[in-house]
Amino acid sequence: MNLSTALLTDHYELTMIQAAMRSGHADRPCVFEAFARRLPDGRRYGVLAGTGRVLEALRDFRFGEEEIAYLRERSVVDDRTLDWLAGYRFSGDIWGYAEGEVYLPGSPLMVVESTFAEGVVLETLILSVLNHDSAVASAASRMTAAAGDRPCIEMGSRRTHEESAVAAARAAYIAGFASTSNLEAGRRHGIPTAGTAAHSYTLLHDDERDAFANQLASLGLQTTLLVDTYDVTAAVELAVELAGPELGGVRLDSGDLVGQAHEVRAQLDALGARGTRIVVTSDLDEHAIAALQAAPVDRYGVGTSVVTGSGHPAAGMVYKLVSRESDAGRMEGVAKASKDKASVGGRKFALRRRSAAGVARAEIIGIDERPQDDGDDRELLVRLVADGEVVALTDAGSARERHARSRAELPVTALRLSHGEAAIPTEYLDDWS
Amino acid sequence: MNLSTALLTDHYELTMIQAAMRSGHADRPCVFEAFARRLPDGRRYGVLAGTGRVLEALRDFRFGEEEIAYLRERSVVDDRTLDWLAGYRFSGDIWGYAEGEVYLPGSPLMVVESTFAEGVVLETLILSVLNHDSAVASAASRMTAAAGDRPCIEMGSRRTHEESAVAAARAAYIAGFASTSNLEAGRRHGIPTAGTAAHSYTLLHDDERDAFANQLASLGLQTTLLVDTYDVTAAVELAVELAGPELGGVRLDSGDLVGQAHEVRAQLDALGARGTRIVVTSDLDEHAIAALQAAPVDRYGVGTSVVTGSGHPAAGMVYKLVSRESDAGRMEGVAKASKDKASVGGRKFALRRRSAAGVARAEIIGIDERPQDDGDDRELLVRLVADGEVVALTDAGSARERHARSRAELPVTALRLSHGEAAIPTEYLDDWS
Repeated sequence: MNLSTALLTDHYELTMIQAAMRSGHADRPCVFEAFARRLPDGRRYGVLAGTGRVLEALRDFRFGEEEIAYLRERSVVDDRTLDWLAGYRFSGDIWGYAEGEVYLPGSPLMVVESTFAEGVVLETLILSVLNHDSAVASAASRMTAAAGDRPCIEMGSRRTHEESAVAAARAAYIAGFASTSNLEAGRRHGIPTAGTAAHSYTLLHDDERDAFANQLASLGLQTTLLVDTYDVTAAVELAVELAGPELGGVRLDSGDLVGQAHEVRAQLDALGARGTRIVVTSDLDEHAIAALQAAPVDRYGVGTSVVTGSGHPAAGMVYKLVSRESDAGRMEGVAKASKDKASVGGRKFALRRRSAAGVARAEIIGIDERPQDDGDDRELLVRLVADGEVVALTDAGSARERHARSRAELPVTALRLSHGEAAIPTEYLDDWS
Repeated sequence: MNLSTALLTDHYELTMIQAAMRSGHADRPCVFEAFARRLPDGRRYGVLAGTGRVLEALRDFRFGEEEIAYLRERSVVDDRTLDWLAGYRFSGDIWGYAEGEVYLPGSPLMVVESTFAEGVVLETLILSVLNHDSAVASAASRMTAAAGDRPCIEMGSRRTHEESAVAAARAAYIAGFASTSNLEAGRRHGIPTAGTAAHSYTLLHDDERDAFANQLASLGLQTTLLVDTYDVTAAVELAVELAGPELGGVRLDSGDLVGQAHEVRAQLDALGARGTRIVVTSDLDEHAIAALQAAPVDRYGVGTSVVTGSGHPAAGMVYKLVSRESDAGRMEGVAKASKDKASVGGRKFALRRRSAAGVARAEIIGIDERPQDDGDDRELLVRLVADGEVVALTDAGSARERHARSRAELPVTALRLSHGEAAIPTEYLDDWS
């Protein structure tokens, strides 16, 4: 396995560099921008995640001997381009929204200022990371908003690629999940991990009593027993008989969760186990969580829907050339005119306009010029890379705090799960207005 | 970055081992099975992919010093369990469907025969790989079936996690895609890569003429020019003016592709460029491809929909304990009774029943016993791992050939894109019948 991230790149990024070297434009000063043209259908806000991972991957973005040998052998590009790639070090500036920030359609989430060649070659990697991680974080934020004070546990590793699973755990944590089942996410990103037992553990034993008794003896009374392998009522009774009222929790993983939660809570209370938590799992998404909020549930375990973005597995971000130096030596905004995919040219700046009470009112985007701060506004672009040096690595913990603050600023309608418009409008201030 | 795959694992796999060690059942002979309870809504068959990647990951599944140190520091499991993990080497047998094989609900896709502890600890990794790769391959197979003889190019790297992108390219290739944009997939899995230029390349230049002329000079006349940055008709005329009738191709990435394909084909033909290919991209999925089959299109570039499983980003496979030794020392089938998630106990065997003409008729699954071959049937389980040694590593190329053969056996209705039942029924032969 090779540790370079440089080949996590589309073939055409390199052929474009070759062609641009021939035209003498590969070194033109350029501005690239990553943004989402729209939010997934009906969603009211997006959550930016992955920025920290992009910056880490940037450090390993080197075309080493093995990468060059592969490209040469397959004649992907010519020798002149290979020589340039072999010496590649990103030397420009990158600005972006801070990780965890809420975003809207058109928000300039990452702005790369560099030569054409230095910036274009990062397109695939930047979009892969941001599109994946933001899709998960955007879905996860709806779930934690629906769950209120009840902790959500991310447990979807088995429903996504093994490395996506680690990134998904990180993105869900940024969006407010309390913990993950994924041990590598625990090690790599410092996220709390959780888990107790599956049905296979119960089935391994000749009877449920033996399984529960050993789990309690081994993992302690605070463990969570899975009670739906055979009969839920019998299992709950057995659990409290063996553990006493100190039992940590019981988990329900099938059937009508709302009805069962009420029944099990009543049964636990009648048995004196008033502090025993009810954990529910089984195809939960934000809507199922909302429907369970009136039921006596203590924790939500969420799998498939969070790691696959709850119906929207990619955030839909694109990376576009928005400005470049012209033959006349001036920076000029550029935009394609393609039907249904037009983009807005120019280097962007962004503020979150807020009321005096601190409620977000609009996403204000300046083109080639910084918008005026009204006094209560918040600047959104921070410098991430300066002259090729990463200056603002973010970890999952700080991104998580930022997300909580950013979401709390939104108007209350933003947290509705029903289909709706973006929580706040995006307003472009063009420099000719 | 650490190269062990051992922590790509759910926390509870390890706590189950700890509890099972206490009950003395961690070493019980067991059979685990990976299967899909159902196909995604309306799909007629699934495509197994990822088997080769599972076997590679198995070789790196070692709890080394760093992994053990993390688990100890976070008190995930006790010292006795850590000692066992430190010495972990899978020593059992694994059987499975060969990679690329078509599957149906209940098909025993991977059968792990080992002690409880040795088998349970592989659950997360096996499911992550198979659920992701099979979701992509299953969607990709519908696309290549719809595309017929026209090549499909996988170009969705930017719409999925950067490592998923590499695995997705491999899975799409297995399902018949001709090439990928992903260079790492080219290097790691030997898949042909392709790509020419994006809108940013055209916008970099002061005019389209300069951009096209340099691309042709640098990449040759066989390159594909992107013609929808400004005006398609003008760009096509310019392209043929500069390249002559030898121009390799033009790419359309926006607007009404069917209408434009007809117009551009007529224009190219009128200009004498009868051999110039039309490549279409832009949010294609199997339905869009089917709708384009009557249009004069030569190649399909597919992005988001193939890497995200075209609406079904996870294949829905589960990994269940289906048999284990009892206190009495006999192997016994086990199954949970959970509502809506019941499983079928027992070690499975599988045949694809075929007519004398070689058309698949049913998926025959024997429980604890090999079904009788009717003479035209095909055995589906092959041994992948024997006594811990991988004996059947598969590469993407051989899986691709297998998929083509396996799909060709299905009844013709299987290739319909409309919602329908599974292409062939799954029939269980239970040993009491």
